[in-house]
Amino acid sequence: MADTHASTPLAIICGGGSFPAAVADAVAARGRRPVMFGIKGWAEAEVIGRYAHHWIAIGQAGRFFRLAKAENCREALFIGTVLRPPIKDLRLDWHTLRLMPRVVRFFRGGDDKLLSGVAGVAESGGLRVVGVKDVAPELFVPEGALGRHRPSERDQADIAHALKLIGALGPFDVGQAAVVADSHVIAVEAAEGTDHMLARIIELRGLGRVTSPSGVGVLVKAPKPGQDRRLDLPSIGPRTIELVAKAGLAGLAVTAGSTMIAEAERTISAADRAKVFVIGVREALAA
Amino acid sequence: MADTHASTPLAIICGGGSFPAAVADAVAARGRRPVMFGIKGWAEAEVIGRYAHHWIAIGQAGRFFRLAKAENCREALFIGTVLRPPIKDLRLDWHTLRLMPRVVRFFRGGDDKLLSGVAGVAESGGLRVVGVKDVAPELFVPEGALGRHRPSERDQADIAHALKLIGALGPFDVGQAAVVADSHVIAVEAAEGTDHMLARIIELRGLGRVTSPSGVGVLVKAPKPGQDRRLDLPSIGPRTIELVAKAGLAGLAVTAGSTMIAEAERTISAADRAKVFVIGVREALAA
Repeated sequence: MADTHASTPLAIICGGGSFPAAVADAVAARGRRPVMFGIKGWAEAEVIGRYAHHWIAIGQAGRFFRLAKAENCREALFIGTVLRPPIKDLRLDWHTLRLMPRVVRFFRGGDDKLLSGVAGVAESGGLRVVGVKDVAPELFVPEGALGRHRPSERDQADIAHALKLIGALGPFDVGQAAVVADSHVIAVEAAEGTDHMLARIIELRGLGRVTSPSGVGVLVKAPKPGQDRRLDLPSIGPRTIELVAKAGLAGLAVTAGSTMIAEAERTISAADRAKVFVIGVREALAA
Repeated sequence: MADTHASTPLAIICGGGSFPAAVADAVAARGRRPVMFGIKGWAEAEVIGRYAHHWIAIGQAGRFFRLAKAENCREALFIGTVLRPPIKDLRLDWHTLRLMPRVVRFFRGGDDKLLSGVAGVAESGGLRVVGVKDVAPELFVPEGALGRHRPSERDQADIAHALKLIGALGPFDVGQAAVVADSHVIAVEAAEGTDHMLARIIELRGLGRVTSPSGVGVLVKAPKPGQDRRLDLPSIGPRTIELVAKAGLAGLAVTAGSTMIAEAERTISAADRAKVFVIGVREALAA
């Protein structure tokens, strides 16, 4: 089933960040033709421009379907962030969007509803939506420690605590990440994103409101239970390592096989230098 | 039982903020003598100084018991925040504290464990620990709307969603507050405190990462299920109203009978002016 259309070009709908390029590279390396559809305001020209590409605006589903058909695509994949500050002139588009009952309905809920809604629109246009895991499984964190450092027993207890917390938040479509230090929950991520949450810990530590000793505490990232794995996925990269180290944490744990890693080599060598661990854990721990 | 010692002076162990004064005023108004024990680094001299008072440092349990006995106190109450930035020279004390196995054990967990531990120490010294509710129930938000404004149906749905979320977080000793806008969880409070969380929403809105229209969304504060109600209590005041308005929220809901209100008149008139609602809701909604 997953390979039915593997010989057709893959439509990659691209948000921001470097992941679209990583996915396209992996797809091309397997001998499949990637066709990039950059979302205006989020996708980066230098990333999109390396392959056959088109630009689309949010709301231009008709244009996308027309172009995808012309490119002979049968499958589509979404990748990249659409959570960064929208470019000013894009705001008008968002207002326009609110007029459309279907799209507005997506917004009546968390990210999951929004993303599932977008996938539904794509599938209504005759394209099969696939996930990164279907086309580039090597972009995910595997099980086990990635670098030189390992979690201590206390770190492991903190990881287990955070995974349980994230599991409990699943029904609320929130919280793909949390920070736990010595069994104390220090931060829970909602709309702010992981980098912002880590910056908060750095700030709270400066204010004396986070008092755990340096080198204690873990960042844990895990997809929400029931999350559509074809769409929004947790990810880590060199910037994550930098903030984890500045926040005085011992390391970070992510669910193996479902968290993407950007620039894997740079990320792991940064972790080694900063003496923080990076580990892929089984999701079963979250249950 | 609650009134056994009501004729004896009440030892009020005071953290920061204005609540210690409000509690002392209410206790004195009932004809009972308050004896203030200001915690160095947190309690404010102008608050403590209005009644008979002593200064104690964290860790000086012996000194506290001696003084409380000399003042003929049989009951003690904790009030005020100990979460604000500790004064610089206090940091040494915290380090000293970590040497004491019992105290260190309190820190191996969230606030609940810390506070229950402190209560245990007080009770081991022969004092009965009472709560604000026992001595000044009028300082709590009652059920129903406090000002001129009322939550809409959408606001009510957001309130119910946030109460459920806070309930789900109970086992993790975290999250006395959350912000929900149109069923979307925008923020969950952990170590940062409510004011900091609201400031984050103001910032995320400026960055375009919180896109709910102004006037949509609620702040909900509720004690964690199982929380020792004699100790750490959620509270609101004029500053809360100011931040709720700046964050573009419709209003705030707190659990009736368990959330304290500072400077009630000023708080309510600020809410009326800012056109935000303030409502006390029954905790049963959280179940």
